[in-house]
Formats: sequence, C-alpha cells, structure tokens
Amino acid sequence: MEENEVSKRNQLIESLLSAETNEDLSAILEDTHSADIADILEVLSKDEKLRIVHALKQETITEILPEMDPDFFYLLLDDFGPEYMASILDELPSDEAADIMSELNQKDLDNLLSLMHRHESALVRRVLQYPEDTAGRLMSTDYVAMNENTTPEQAIEYIRSKRQEEPFYYVYVVDNNNKFIGSVPIQKILFASKTSTLGVLIDEEETVSVSTGVDQEEVARLFEKYDIPAVPVVDGDGRLAGRITVDDIIDVIYEENSEDIYRMAGTDYEEVYSDSAFKVARIRLPWLLTCIIGSLLSGAVIHYFEITLSKAIALVSFIPVIMATGGNTGLQSCTIMVRRMALGNVSSHNVFSSIFKEIRTGLILGLVCGSFLCLIAFLWRGDASVGVILGMSMFCAVSASSILGILIPMVFKKINIDPAVASGPFITTLNDVIGLTIYLFLATILLSHVL
Amino acid sequence: MEENEVSKRNQLIESLLSAETNEDLSAILEDTHSADIADILEVLSKDEKLRIVHALKQETITEILPEMDPDFFYLLLDDFGPEYMASILDELPSDEAADIMSELNQKDLDNLLSLMHRHESALVRRVLQYPEDTAGRLMSTDYVAMNENTTPEQAIEYIRSKRQEEPFYYVYVVDNNNKFIGSVPIQKILFASKTSTLGVLIDEEETVSVSTGVDQEEVARLFEKYDIPAVPVVDGDGRLAGRITVDDIIDVIYEENSEDIYRMAGTDYEEVYSDSAFKVARIRLPWLLTCIIGSLLSGAVIHYFEITLSKAIALVSFIPVIMATGGNTGLQSCTIMVRRMALGNVSSHNVFSSIFKEIRTGLILGLVCGSFLCLIAFLWRGDASVGVILGMSMFCAVSASSILGILIPMVFKKINIDPAVASGPFITTLNDVIGLTIYLFLATILLSHVL
Repeated sequence: MEENEVSKRNQLIESLLSAETNEDLSAILEDTHSADIADILEVLSKDEKLRIVHALKQETITEILPEMDPDFFYLLLDDFGPEYMASILDELPSDEAADIMSELNQKDLDNLLSLMHRHESALVRRVLQYPEDTAGRLMSTDYVAMNENTTPEQAIEYIRSKRQEEPFYYVYVVDNNNKFIGSVPIQKILFASKTSTLGVLIDEEETVSVSTGVDQEEVARLFEKYDIPAVPVVDGDGRLAGRITVDDIIDVIYEENSEDIYRMAGTDYEEVYSDSAFKVARIRLPWLLTCIIGSLLSGAVIHYFEITLSKAIALVSFIPVIMATGGNTGLQSCTIMVRRMALGNVSSHNVFSSIFKEIRTGLILGLVCGSFLCLIAFLWRGDASVGVILGMSMFCAVSASSILGILIPMVFKKINIDPAVASGPFITTLNDVIGLTIYLFLATILLSHVL
Repeated sequence: MEENEVSKRNQLIESLLSAETNEDLSAILEDTHSADIADILEVLSKDEKLRIVHALKQETITEILPEMDPDFFYLLLDDFGPEYMASILDELPSDEAADIMSELNQKDLDNLLSLMHRHESALVRRVLQYPEDTAGRLMSTDYVAMNENTTPEQAIEYIRSKRQEEPFYYVYVVDNNNKFIGSVPIQKILFASKTSTLGVLIDEEETVSVSTGVDQEEVARLFEKYDIPAVPVVDGDGRLAGRITVDDIIDVIYEENSEDIYRMAGTDYEEVYSDSAFKVARIRLPWLLTCIIGSLLSGAVIHYFEITLSKAIALVSFIPVIMATGGNTGLQSCTIMVRRMALGNVSSHNVFSSIFKEIRTGLILGLVCGSFLCLIAFLWRGDASVGVILGMSMFCAVSASSILGILIPMVFKKINIDPAVASGPFITTLNDVIGLTIYLFLATILLSHVL
C-alpha cells in the first residue's frame, strides 16, 4: 500500500470517528466505496465498528460482509440478532452466503438457515455440500448459458431482457442435452454475422472448464495458465453447475500464499485478524512446543558428547554456527523444491536431473562455507585443529542438509503428506541433529586419535 | 496441480518425445493449447526444448514466449539468431515485448531494438522508460476509449468496426480534453436506451484508475479490493495511457508471493528455473555467509561465558532449545506483523493495540514454554537448579523475542527498509544472541550467588 493510500485512509478514519451526529456519519459513508468501508472497519475497535455499521444502509452491509472475517459476522449477529442477519444472507449470492456461513458453529448455522427464505437456504445448503476449498464451493450460479443453435442476435436480445447485472465475460454454450460444449467471449457475439450461431462462434482457445471437485489451488493455476476472466464449472455428467470469476480467484491466491507463509513460520491465517492474545498464543504454541521437543533432541546429541566438550570447551562456541547454517541450507533447498512442486515444475521426466543439480549445489555450498568457517575459526581461535574440525563438519553438514532439503518434500509427497509441512520445523530439527552429530563426532575422532 | 493434470502432462511429454518424424510432432502440437506447450517446455532439457520449438509455427512461438523465463529467450536467440527473434518481438503487444526485453543485457537489448520495426521498438522503448514493477510497465495500450457524448449505438458500431480481439470488459470514457472520467462495463452498453450517452452510463462503483508510477503490488491490491477485471492507467495529467488486465495481475501476485517466500528462506525466484548448480550456489551463498557471521556472534556470547559452561557442562545441552525457541517465536510474531503491514491492516489508529496484544501474547507464550522446559529439564537432569535457570531464561527469551518480532518490522518501515527483510536472517540472529545472553547470564548469576 502506497503512502498516499495509507494517509487517505487515515484521514477518512479520522473524519468518521470525529463525526458528531449520525447524520454526519451517514453522509460521509454515503460517498465512500463499500470496499473502502470494509478496509477501514478492519482496523477499528468493536465499538467503533458497531457505530459505523449502524450508520450504514442494509444494502451496504450486504456488500461489505463477504470482505470481513468471521469475528465481524458474530459481532453483527450479537448486535442485530439472527432475523436481521438472515435477511442480509438472503440478499447475498449463494456462494458468498455459503462462504460466510461455513465458518459458523453448527447451532448458529442451523438457526440462520431456518430463518432464511426457503429458496435461498436450499441454495446455500447445496453449496455447503461441496467440500471446502473445491471449485463447487467457489462457484456462483450467476452465469449466462444458451443453446448452440442460438443466433448472435437472439443472444443479445436475451442478454438485454435478462439485464444481467454481474459482468459475465462469456456466454457458455450447451448442446441439446444441456452439456457444456464451449465458451464464446461476449465481444465475439457483437462482431458476429447474423447467420452465425453460438455453436460456430465457440472459441477453442478460451474454452476451459473444471469439475466441481477440483481443488481451488488448481483452479487458480488454470486462471494463471490460460489468462481467462472466468471459468465454467461442470458436474460429473458434463452439465453446467456454475461459474468461478477471477475476483474470487484473486482472493484464493492471496489466501493460499498467506497460508504458505504462515505455515513456514508455524502460525496461522486466523491470527492476523484475532484480537485475543490467548487465541494467538493457542495458535502458536503447538509449533513452539514441537520445536522445543525437537531441539531437545539436539540437546541429547550434545549430552552424548559431553566428555569431548568438557575436554575442549572452545568447541561449544561453534555449536550455533553449525546448527544455524545446516538448518538454513536445508530450508533453502526445501523451499525451492516445495515451490517447484507447487508450481508444477517437477515431473517424473526431470526428477533425477533436479536431484543431481541439488547434490552439485550442496557440494559447492559445503565447500565454500566449510573453507570460510575453517579460516574464521583459525583466525579467531588461533588453533589449526579447531579450524580443520569445523571446516570438515561444515562441509558435511551443509551438503547433507541441501540434499535432505530436496529429498524430504519428495518423500512426504509420495506418502501423501503435504510437502509444505516439511519446509517448516521438520527439516530444521532434522538438520540441527544431523549437523551437531557430524560436528561432535568428527571432533571426538579427530581430537582423540589424529590431532 | 491435481494428479490427473500431472499424468495428462506426463502422457503428452511422452508422446511428444517419442514422435519419430517432425510431421508427427507438429501434428500433436497443432492440437495442444499454447499454454500447455509452455508448461511442458519448462520441464524439458535444452535439446528437447529446441526440437519442439522447431516444430512450432511462428505464431505459437510468439504466444508461448511471454510465459517463459529469460534463459529460454537466450536459448532461442542463440539458435534462431537476432533477426528472427526481433520479428517475433514485433508481433507481441508492447508491454509483453518490453517485459521480456527488460531481462536482457544491454548489448542484446540494443541490437534487438535496432532490428525491430521502427514503430514497435519506439513503443517498447517508451514502456521501458517506466521503472520496473510499476503500473506503467505492466499496462498495455490495447484498450477501448470513447468520448463521453458517444451514444451506446455508436459505441457498439465502433467496437464492431475495430474488431478488438483482446477482451476489453469496459469502455473507458474521456472528456473533450481526453481526460479519463469513468468506466462503462460492456454489458451496460448493451442494455442502454438509444438516447443515453456514455457519460451518463459511467458506473461509479467500477470507476477506479491508477497512475503510471504506482507500484505493481498496490495495483494488485486494488484488483483484490474492488473486484474488477481491468483498470485504466492515467498519466500525470489524468489522460489515459494504458490499461492493466487481471491476467497480468495474477502473474504479479504469484511472483510477489513467491518472492516473499524465497526471501524468508534467503534465496531467489531465479533459482526455480535455473539449471546451473553454480548459479544456484551463488544465489544462496550471500545469505548463508551472513548467517554464518551472525551465528558467530552467538558463538562469541558463548565464548564470553565459557567459564560458567566449563563449570556446569550440563548447561551446554540446552543451548539448542534456547536458540531455536527464541528464534521461532520472533519469526512468528514478525511474520504476522509483516503480513499485516503488507495487507494494510496496520494503521496509526491501531498500532498501540497491536503492540499491547503482542506483549500479552509474548508473556503467555513465555510462561507456558518456560514452565514446560523447567519441568522437562528437571525430569531429564534430575536437578532443580537447572530447571529453574532454564524456565526463567525461556520465559525471558520468548517474551523478548515476541515483542522484538513486532517492533523490528515497524522500525524497519520507519527508516524505509522493506520490513519483509526483517523476517529473515536479522530477527533470527538477533533473537539467538539475546536468548543465549539471557540464558548464560542468568545461569552465571544463579549458579555463583544464589543456588
């Protein structure tokens, strides 16, 4: 966000919070884009949020609700009551209502569904039947479909009569059995000759569809690959079930990418919006405790070599560098590998060339880091034997970590564990243990037998 | 990518590589979407890439080129020569040609510009004048703009006559001085009455524009916030300069998010596509060497307390747990903070409540982790004094790290350093040093004076 955007927002917050009467407040809000109101509400306290929401028209509340987090919905539910919230959910497209309601507890969900219009709640129930994070959950039923024999003129007439409000980009073409057969970009209909039909106008390059069960990350990849603004969703029989537009996909991409970043740091998306320190602590603790237990393993390795260490206490001061460098090398190669797998850049065709490249890289990194540390240790401690032990350990630890960093995500994938999990605590703990074992083992051998 | 997508691709690669004659190869490629060809080329070796490219029509090469990395362009440049590549660049929209050419070295860039058509190379030069990662660099000149007094019927006639190939979603409306005044969604023109004008049809909710100098990340945020498929770009005088479409923005979001992830792991986007182990090693080394130097600081802290350690060697085996837990807590709070800042969820309005929340969270985490470690240490070593030292150190280290994790990105932002840099090596090194100092200092005090 650029400075001017930020200061614009701060000014608006200032003027909203300093509005003395509710009329003043409503007047300012009237002139503000609903997306900007949603943006501002996110940084306000509960009381401030409520004061602003009470000055909004129901239509605007309906518009901002899909942009907000579940806590906000519960805030409104407590304040306005379930009847009012059900009437707002009635106004939303079924996919957005379902998206909000999927975050509620079962009791509130059932209650709201019973208060909504019969037709709307049936639609929401249908969307909620699709598993979370699939195309079925993302799609809306807001699309334009016509038979392949329709002429361009009839199509334009139909579109005019329907007064479709949402941008639709394509007319989806179905055959006589209602099966999806292709997409016609809307401007192609405008250019078409009168004797043509939609079946003829189908644009093969733009005809892409997904099944209801496809994962949302894969749907996002399709948008990225084919550069399309919307994709039709078909059911098991090839019939049109809905449509996903690019604006929902942008949210998916931001969400999935944030998730990846949070996972690397051992935390969770929820935390960004949570106001409770206890809740945040509960989200972070499992990972911290796992990490404590993991690093106690490293402690056990050190304990095992305590005799060596007590004889040469100077070795202790190099424990951090061995641990940190091994862990980081593993994290680097692991991150790259997980990312390549997520981007679909790894196939059975090139898996071995990937592994060999990583082995070569690991050896080069080990050699450079090992020599560097050998020199530093010699200069700092003035003792050649410490330098040699450190250089050799560093070489082994760095090469081993790079190679493990690429192999572990592959193994995780083979046994059906999300490889992204590997890039976090697992690889770091493993590499710490391996690095320390190599270091202390070499030190014990070299100190007692060779040097 | 789902299993069936992967196996479909593997099958296609199989059939492409086993095609015996070039005719067979061309026949298969003829039936393949250019986006799929681009996808496959990414996993092939240089020789395989060239064999396939030689079987493609020039039109298809032009289509896939913007999807590929710079190494691929150089591969074709070496093989086909600069004249042929210049003719391909001539065929591309100026923003895509500029995007490819910006990655070339100055000599090749100048040579290709001189070989391109005068008109095309002038367009590319103009795009290249805008700084990298700005709206000006992303925009294409492929848009539809009309005067505010145009009637819907004239507009449709004009669109038909222009036979605009690219989807355009909106007609951009300009006043008599050619200044941008608003956007009309294309379907609104279809519904409009004959007596209306574009000026009247402007949709305020959909009218969003950016200046040429705006950063691409901010442009992406606008697309996410306003749910629009395209945004017009205006120059300093408010005149239309171009347009950015959502497909380019999806690429930007993937790229920026990948960058964030790579930065956390201390590596770079380039690495994913690079075939050279030396190049990869060169990308990773600066961070590893920084990390070695950083962790030598921790070593210096240990060195300073060597006398304490040699008297109580059992303390050494808890160095890893103190280091790892402090580093990880800092990483968690720092990641969340950087993310909140990137998402625009931090404003001067709520900065103090953020800090106080983090302090509370840090104290809770410190208490839980400290008690847990105190218990573990007592059970493992059967020595209450070690347990007390560890529990207290852990409490101090974890609380301090959480709080630093939130403050450092803020300080970085204040002094105009990208806060994302802080979530990497800086915070980890700092927290290691602080954690170790607290631990060894407390141990020295408690061992010599109290216990």
